[in-house]
Amino acid sequence: MISAEKMAMFGRFFYPRSVAVIGVSANEWAFGSLYLSTLIRFGYKGKLYPVNPRGGEFFGLSAYPSVKDIPNSADLAVISVPAPAIPSVLEDCLAKGIKAAVVVSAGFSESGEEGRSLEEEVVNIARKGIRVIGPNCFGTYCPSGGLSLLPGSVFARESGAVGLMAQSGQFPEMVALQSRGLGIRFSKVVSYGDACDLNEADFLEYLAEDAATKVIQVYIEGVREGRRFLDIVRRTSRTKPVILWKAGLTQLGKTAVSSHTGSLGGEEITWKAFFSQSGAVRVNSLEELIDATIAFLHLPPNCGPRVALVSGGGAGAVAGADACEYWGLSMPPLSGETRQKLSSLLPQIGASARNPVDMAIPFPPTQRLTSVLEVIAASEQIDAIIVRRIFLSQKGLSLVFGRNPPEEDQRELMDVPLVVKEKFGKPIIVVLCEEITDIEMLEFEADRRELRDYYLAHGIPVYPTLDRAIRALAHFVKYQEQRNRLETDLKLSSL
Amino acid sequence: MISAEKMAMFGRFFYPRSVAVIGVSANEWAFGSLYLSTLIRFGYKGKLYPVNPRGGEFFGLSAYPSVKDIPNSADLAVISVPAPAIPSVLEDCLAKGIKAAVVVSAGFSESGEEGRSLEEEVVNIARKGIRVIGPNCFGTYCPSGGLSLLPGSVFARESGAVGLMAQSGQFPEMVALQSRGLGIRFSKVVSYGDACDLNEADFLEYLAEDAATKVIQVYIEGVREGRRFLDIVRRTSRTKPVILWKAGLTQLGKTAVSSHTGSLGGEEITWKAFFSQSGAVRVNSLEELIDATIAFLHLPPNCGPRVALVSGGGAGAVAGADACEYWGLSMPPLSGETRQKLSSLLPQIGASARNPVDMAIPFPPTQRLTSVLEVIAASEQIDAIIVRRIFLSQKGLSLVFGRNPPEEDQRELMDVPLVVKEKFGKPIIVVLCEEITDIEMLEFEADRRELRDYYLAHGIPVYPTLDRAIRALAHFVKYQEQRNRLETDLKLSSL
Repeated sequence: MISAEKMAMFGRFFYPRSVAVIGVSANEWAFGSLYLSTLIRFGYKGKLYPVNPRGGEFFGLSAYPSVKDIPNSADLAVISVPAPAIPSVLEDCLAKGIKAAVVVSAGFSESGEEGRSLEEEVVNIARKGIRVIGPNCFGTYCPSGGLSLLPGSVFARESGAVGLMAQSGQFPEMVALQSRGLGIRFSKVVSYGDACDLNEADFLEYLAEDAATKVIQVYIEGVREGRRFLDIVRRTSRTKPVILWKAGLTQLGKTAVSSHTGSLGGEEITWKAFFSQSGAVRVNSLEELIDATIAFLHLPPNCGPRVALVSGGGAGAVAGADACEYWGLSMPPLSGETRQKLSSLLPQIGASARNPVDMAIPFPPTQRLTSVLEVIAASEQIDAIIVRRIFLSQKGLSLVFGRNPPEEDQRELMDVPLVVKEKFGKPIIVVLCEEITDIEMLEFEADRRELRDYYLAHGIPVYPTLDRAIRALAHFVKYQEQRNRLETDLKLSSL
Repeated sequence: MISAEKMAMFGRFFYPRSVAVIGVSANEWAFGSLYLSTLIRFGYKGKLYPVNPRGGEFFGLSAYPSVKDIPNSADLAVISVPAPAIPSVLEDCLAKGIKAAVVVSAGFSESGEEGRSLEEEVVNIARKGIRVIGPNCFGTYCPSGGLSLLPGSVFARESGAVGLMAQSGQFPEMVALQSRGLGIRFSKVVSYGDACDLNEADFLEYLAEDAATKVIQVYIEGVREGRRFLDIVRRTSRTKPVILWKAGLTQLGKTAVSSHTGSLGGEEITWKAFFSQSGAVRVNSLEELIDATIAFLHLPPNCGPRVALVSGGGAGAVAGADACEYWGLSMPPLSGETRQKLSSLLPQIGASARNPVDMAIPFPPTQRLTSVLEVIAASEQIDAIIVRRIFLSQKGLSLVFGRNPPEEDQRELMDVPLVVKEKFGKPIIVVLCEEITDIEMLEFEADRRELRDYYLAHGIPVYPTLDRAIRALAHFVKYQEQRNRLETDLKLSSL
């Protein structure tokens, strides 16, 4: 539990009633201007105070020459002026009673000796009563607070269950952009850069406490308070998954980190211990982070590691079996009874009633597909079903094969995974291949996206490749297993 | 060198003047029918003889009750009838003077004891004078021969430099579908399944000899003639890259292989030795295979491992440095002089003139981008430049940021990588992120595809993520290094 005072402090960053944007300029592509225009376009409802030394009007708002000139005070200051000017601007904010500031500007510890001493100045001012996110960051995005400080792009206005903290400006921007089309919505996002005052441990503590946040995404390059961070990750992991990408663990990566956020990268061996002790879900790319998030948002807690793969053709079935073993999932043999039932449903030629189940063709009749999935879902050997290379859209099928598909009801066909999932309470994961990439085939892409959105809206995780589906499922299963073990331990120790 | 007789034998599969399609049926989605309709839609110019025991008319062609009834003979028979009927159909073909047959049907060694003895029968008939591809396969696709036997989908009609052989039917279909939108065109494709007669070694020998084939893609689950195959891969690798995916090396994968193509999967340790001895480029997924192919099609032979990364923001720069080290590439520091020149071009804040070079914003002015790339391309420390997270399209930028972009000439902007590449003869690789995935944002996707096609048409490899770009480049560089070493060895030993 964190104190009410601390929650109020964070509130200024995520739910400010007024924002001073310091460093707005005539160049509308400069960061200060982008902040202001993004807030307006996002529909921020609070007071906005643009600040520019020469005054002027920006996006319909009159600028104040200095933060000292704004009426009353502001809950939050967003500052984008050259680094050497930051300390005096912060002092002005402090004098004005502003208690929270996002320092966007770069040019601090990541840029050498001079920057480091500048950062010390910032820290000293912060200690006098103004908390700082940054420098060298983008700040916060909080749909329920009605604000987005990620400059430029406009992100979703709806709230969701995912909290994201990233020691980078661009990273949350890219995650938020990709997420928008994948049905992932955010509770709170923070880009915190060099972390001179508020750091990774503080943000995680806040997201752990935040009731709206169910899944936490973390991108870090280094840590300021390693021990405290480990403790918080460990504690948080018991109730919420912490999906964490630690970048910059190679020699080349470390060098890049030091000029990006000025952090110390740390060693692989230390981080390996961190992951094994903390219970965090370890990912190594943006795709992997997003894929895992989709699994955590949609899969039921009781989902185990025993996969049945249902494939409309054999090549991917072999690759899928390889991937299951590689990622620590199992693909158990089906019982004789189940196999017999499947054999009676499948074509005699080219199909396989063994797991991975091969339906021989990628366009099985709706009734056959339903029956096959039902037989497998009823099997006690299986925890989750992955469906791949099966056309779940008549339109997609006819676009690829250039012919009218067998007569089927489209709605009935696309609903097969939903119906089976509901009936048996067993998770189904769909792989919708992104294999049609011609410029002329945008219609196929549109159809694929529609299908994807439909499944995601109905609790069915969707992935573009089988490998990615299996990897995401494995992350989910491993986390659940770990958490269950922990709960059992706790119960036993309380006997 | 393979004999003229053998080349003629392969010619019947890739350049047949007439094809008997045996097993056409009233169900237009049955394989026999799909073969016939695909050949017609592809525009096959030779004679087509559909065969159906009850005669009838299919897609405007009259069917013959048996292959014995077709006029004269045919260069090739494509047979899709139930497995037990295959031997007698093959005998009929033999009697009719047909010397080449694709046996599509499954139900042979991959399906148990009975299938195995059926396969022996097929092999015995083959020895009497009819060569067989299959069983349990799709057959051949050869644009310059005017035919595609990959049933259903219609693939590109233009020829290209890539030869593909796959022990699977679906695999080449998926590769060909994805390739179409990526500018990859094929010389010859063969799906060969259980390989009871012609096997992996035969096909590779043919592709190695084929003048139109410059890059060879291989998907295998097992081998029939391991020693011979190794020798041919080794010999071929000296002149053409052999990009090879061996699937089914885990225990689960092996089990899946045995019911897919009936092959013996082999052990990881054996295959590790195979790769180190053969010089084949080892890949582990369809994406990796295609990504590597793009690198081999577009990069110049002198491209070395020293990468400069130019990024419009820092998070990906760190991940890129990690990936370079992981994949064995280097990211050397730039000389003081180069750094100075870059510093004078880059914004003072948020940028980095070190490698990875961070341009601070993803929409640098055209002139600045050109100058930065030119300074780096002129550097003797650098072999290849990767550009990421930089908007090379005004339209894409305005779609993401929802505002009119700074005034620039679109053509001039998108031509920057081309101009620099031409001027300095140094490869440039572009990462065009696929991060906008909303259904409403299809326009962005269309714009991205146009840009991608433009670059690919002008010898600039394009990838959807930085990781994939780096991995593909690493495959290319490693292959070139190996080949150069080998050439030096050969020269030395001939002294």
